[in-house]
Amino acid sequence: MKYDFSARAHTLLSSQLLSIRTQTRRGSMISLAEELPAEELFPLSLLAETASTVISADAGALQYGDPEGYGPLREWLIGDWLKAKGVAVAEGGVLLTTGSQQAIDLLSRVYIDPGDCVLVENPTSPGMLQALRMQGAVIIPVQGDRDGLLPDHLRSQILQHRPKMLYAAPSFTNPSGVLWSLTRRKEILELCIAHDVLIVEDDSYGDLHFERYNEHPLGKYPSLYALENVSDGGHVLYIGSFSKTVAPALRTGWAAGSRELISVMAAAKQMADWQSSSLNQRLLHHLLDVSAFDLREHIKLLNREYHTRFKLMIELLKRPAWKQSSYELPVGGMFLWVSLPDGMDVNALLRCALGKGVAFLPGPLCSVNGGGQYIRLNFTHPGRDELLLGMNLMSEAVTEFTARS
Amino acid sequence: MKYDFSARAHTLLSSQLLSIRTQTRRGSMISLAEELPAEELFPLSLLAETASTVISADAGALQYGDPEGYGPLREWLIGDWLKAKGVAVAEGGVLLTTGSQQAIDLLSRVYIDPGDCVLVENPTSPGMLQALRMQGAVIIPVQGDRDGLLPDHLRSQILQHRPKMLYAAPSFTNPSGVLWSLTRRKEILELCIAHDVLIVEDDSYGDLHFERYNEHPLGKYPSLYALENVSDGGHVLYIGSFSKTVAPALRTGWAAGSRELISVMAAAKQMADWQSSSLNQRLLHHLLDVSAFDLREHIKLLNREYHTRFKLMIELLKRPAWKQSSYELPVGGMFLWVSLPDGMDVNALLRCALGKGVAFLPGPLCSVNGGGQYIRLNFTHPGRDELLLGMNLMSEAVTEFTARS
Repeated sequence: MKYDFSARAHTLLSSQLLSIRTQTRRGSMISLAEELPAEELFPLSLLAETASTVISADAGALQYGDPEGYGPLREWLIGDWLKAKGVAVAEGGVLLTTGSQQAIDLLSRVYIDPGDCVLVENPTSPGMLQALRMQGAVIIPVQGDRDGLLPDHLRSQILQHRPKMLYAAPSFTNPSGVLWSLTRRKEILELCIAHDVLIVEDDSYGDLHFERYNEHPLGKYPSLYALENVSDGGHVLYIGSFSKTVAPALRTGWAAGSRELISVMAAAKQMADWQSSSLNQRLLHHLLDVSAFDLREHIKLLNREYHTRFKLMIELLKRPAWKQSSYELPVGGMFLWVSLPDGMDVNALLRCALGKGVAFLPGPLCSVNGGGQYIRLNFTHPGRDELLLGMNLMSEAVTEFTARS
Repeated sequence: MKYDFSARAHTLLSSQLLSIRTQTRRGSMISLAEELPAEELFPLSLLAETASTVISADAGALQYGDPEGYGPLREWLIGDWLKAKGVAVAEGGVLLTTGSQQAIDLLSRVYIDPGDCVLVENPTSPGMLQALRMQGAVIIPVQGDRDGLLPDHLRSQILQHRPKMLYAAPSFTNPSGVLWSLTRRKEILELCIAHDVLIVEDDSYGDLHFERYNEHPLGKYPSLYALENVSDGGHVLYIGSFSKTVAPALRTGWAAGSRELISVMAAAKQMADWQSSSLNQRLLHHLLDVSAFDLREHIKLLNREYHTRFKLMIELLKRPAWKQSSYELPVGGMFLWVSLPDGMDVNALLRCALGKGVAFLPGPLCSVNGGGQYIRLNFTHPGRDELLLGMNLMSEAVTEFTARS
């Protein structure tokens, strides 16, 4: 039969994201395209032990759980993890989701009607852009610099577009790696409070602060949520995930904020898939709260290793092929956001790179409009040898294209 | 701040489903309301062993996976499980989802625009109704009897409403437990093919066929998908789940059908949550394809036990309290759908029952409109003692209400 898809299903079909992901799964492909953590650093043996213990102990671990997520893990998040970050959340103010992407999708579904204006950092997360487009939002970019969004531009966009929401990732914006300054954080928060704009603060990358792995980041870079310091009725929904800090396959992210927002999102969650895996949530809770695993120490380990890989990538970008390229140096996150010479067609470059066996993410996927001369490179997943080989292949591709233009 | 939710978020807020679920999670409550399998029968030790083996063996088990789901599990589904049911699926024709509910939600999002007409059995799955309402569908009920949907009524509803889709569960409809006859299956399928109506066939309960646990059900009750026998471009999307047959906490369901439909749903899946837990999918695959676990034997065990519990519930329904109630006797599924005396307010009855410590599902949650004199009782989760106590409390509640009216 001829299938008659919904109007907005077509926004998904034109997505390049899925096809890049599919191609990078081929065995021999080196992927600098994705958001993958280093597999070598997963707490394998502790998780294997945990899984065996948790499943043997209680048949309830295999039963349906709460739509909001496993209670003890929510309590641990509220009482331990978030509290230590200055993020005060009331009981009932956390929803566990299938990664932070689901938190974003659920919020979009319960908060955005077709035609509603939403502000985003530009460039921004490809996943957020997809969710907003599927919801029929009018997406308005806000300009930023190396210190974060520009308050003047934000103000003028608010006044012109009357947006319902601002999506931002102040700590290591995906893809640019920008870490907003404290002043900027305060200015942006004040503007949104003054104009009643809901801020969706995505802190999925915030712990990956590799130059300061021995220093508590709370003092210098508090989240917008912590700055507002209202546990209920506030202007910030705080989103995070264990995908980058423990393991993605556990598919556990969260949204934290006002009970009113969270309860509506929980109802949407129940409608969407009843609940995420309570088995995974129990494994995480046991790992974090009972086993010998120490998440803070583990994050330090990740940051030391990611810093090393980052420095290697920077060295490799000093080669002649990249002479006309430019980039800022982030102090965390998972990506380098590289500006290529004017006029370079990044989609043609991608085809060439894929032919050589390496993948990257083209800038337009992270941009409301444009982004055509940018590419996003991931430095956390490939190990030393893979990074060397992958960057050699990338250099070849860039050289070929620079010669042509 | 005052949150300004999307228009259809309000369809979720008025949902009684979430509040019943929340209440039944209280420790002392006996729940006859939910769709829970018997915990005592979960393959605990095999799964504990499996988890330890799978996680220790390969760090890839904790990494991001494919949006479509873990390849070897999809292959097992296509090449073993579905094939044996006469369900022929092409490679690329299966999407793994977070339970069958997510398959339903994703399909609704990519196929239904606000105002589109969708036909449903009446009564039908509360989860399906929620997903359709959230999507803004116009939901049209089709009448049925103990053999399945009535072809004449289906034809007239198709001609009058020009629906895009029919949602049906021919094998043990939730909540009524109807098992469609072969003739009816053929008639309904032919009508939908003739009028190009997509059928969403939910077979989540199809294996729970407790009177015929020693007989292969394929011969007598083939799925609509198997009857059409087209692996690509067909009129049926076939939906199922491991939640009822292995364990719900693994949150693994699937949609199988035409590659075109599946690829669009996979794109929506990626937008919604990137992917379900590939760890859980690997655990399932190892359990089903490598370990000593035999799913077919396990299902026979479930059906023997569920049949015993079913017979006990039937016995308990012979008590005087239920004299004016009526019900059909299903030969499978998880529920009894009981019609109470005219004029009984099932929502008031629910409040009374909850006060006594027992929960059931009120009929209106399963109905497009009406359903007010029905209740749904689950017999698979409570063990013998719990069933006795729960049904005693239910009898008390019903007696009180019958005396009043």
